[in-house]
Amino acid sequence: MAIPNLQVALDQSSLSEALKTVRKVGEEVDIIEAGTILCLAEGMQAVKCLRALYPDKIVVADTKCADAGGTVAGNASDAGADWMTVICSATIPTMKKAAEQVSELQVELYGNWTYEDAEKWLEAGISQAVYHQSRDALLAGETWGEKDLTRVKKLVEMGFRVSVTGGLEKETLQLFAGVDVFTFIAGRSITESADPKAAAREMKEEMRRIFGDAK
Amino acid sequence: MAIPNLQVALDQSSLSEALKTVRKVGEEVDIIEAGTILCLAEGMQAVKCLRALYPDKIVVADTKCADAGGTVAGNASDAGADWMTVICSATIPTMKKAAEQVSELQVELYGNWTYEDAEKWLEAGISQAVYHQSRDALLAGETWGEKDLTRVKKLVEMGFRVSVTGGLEKETLQLFAGVDVFTFIAGRSITESADPKAAAREMKEEMRRIFGDAK
Repeated sequence: MAIPNLQVALDQSSLSEALKTVRKVGEEVDIIEAGTILCLAEGMQAVKCLRALYPDKIVVADTKCADAGGTVAGNASDAGADWMTVICSATIPTMKKAAEQVSELQVELYGNWTYEDAEKWLEAGISQAVYHQSRDALLAGETWGEKDLTRVKKLVEMGFRVSVTGGLEKETLQLFAGVDVFTFIAGRSITESADPKAAAREMKEEMRRIFGDAK
Repeated sequence: MAIPNLQVALDQSSLSEALKTVRKVGEEVDIIEAGTILCLAEGMQAVKCLRALYPDKIVVADTKCADAGGTVAGNASDAGADWMTVICSATIPTMKKAAEQVSELQVELYGNWTYEDAEKWLEAGISQAVYHQSRDALLAGETWGEKDLTRVKKLVEMGFRVSVTGGLEKETLQLFAGVDVFTFIAGRSITESADPKAAAREMKEEMRRIFGDAK
């Protein structure tokens, strides 16, 4: 079991705010995400700027694309994104067309989906799944539980590299001990901490502690 | 039964291309949509420019928002959008928070959804549903059929004002005779015709012919 990646989600509503944040943590993380809020607020200009500032990091455009997969993914790729996300309720043709345009396509799991759907996503060329606790659902009181862990494990068994996200704090990571998580995506627990760089380093340290032994 | 609205979807990948298109048809239609491709490519700047150019038209931000509903809808509203879309696989808290920020929230129907879900969307403050044929699915050979009409009618009965979209041409409208469609959303059948203004007027004329008698 490899030590998972750490991804920072930039969910600011303006490019300047996102840059103010990323300069504190960009070098500390493995993957830099232009979050959905940022993509919708600033467009692919945000991805272009992250690509320009971090040529050696993986950049993800979290578009949660639902349609016109080829065009949206082509635009993300032209802007410099390595990976892009599609929403799980997109059609298979949308996923196939998007998968052709980026190095890796990630499916974002929201709402109703089945393992039969997931088999089709793999066939459509999707290599990664992002398992979510919705930000709004978390605010409404939901949290990580056994149900989530079972689903993550099942997706890993099916062949997806799985990212987990939604309200992750350093203290939450222990829940995933023994689960082959590919990437932990953190947003505000890093970016809104008093010392974002230290927060990112502590997350990485905790990941090495939990997953390093199990290698 | 009222005569449906005509909405033009601007799905260009750059603001300048979108403006080149909208100037030909903006005054002819009832509703101007910053399409998902455009929103993701240019951000809310696209909505701001459409609002500036067409102060008296309804402007929709087709964000297909999947999470962080309050923030995304707040940004859309600040940019001047009257309405915004959310994807049907978003959580109910996401929909509720988005609904608080815009005049009307539209749910975009993709993938697996049920009428029980739809009841919850109404309760969450969603007033409109957008019934879709996915652009990529259309390219893969699917088309409008009885199954679609039945679902549209059922959604209307439930209390949604329903927009239909996806590969609509003037010739497709007749299929919906007798169905209380709120809005027809057309993209390339108008914007890529030799004379977009004439194409929009002909669509409106056909809508008056089909739905005007049934008033």
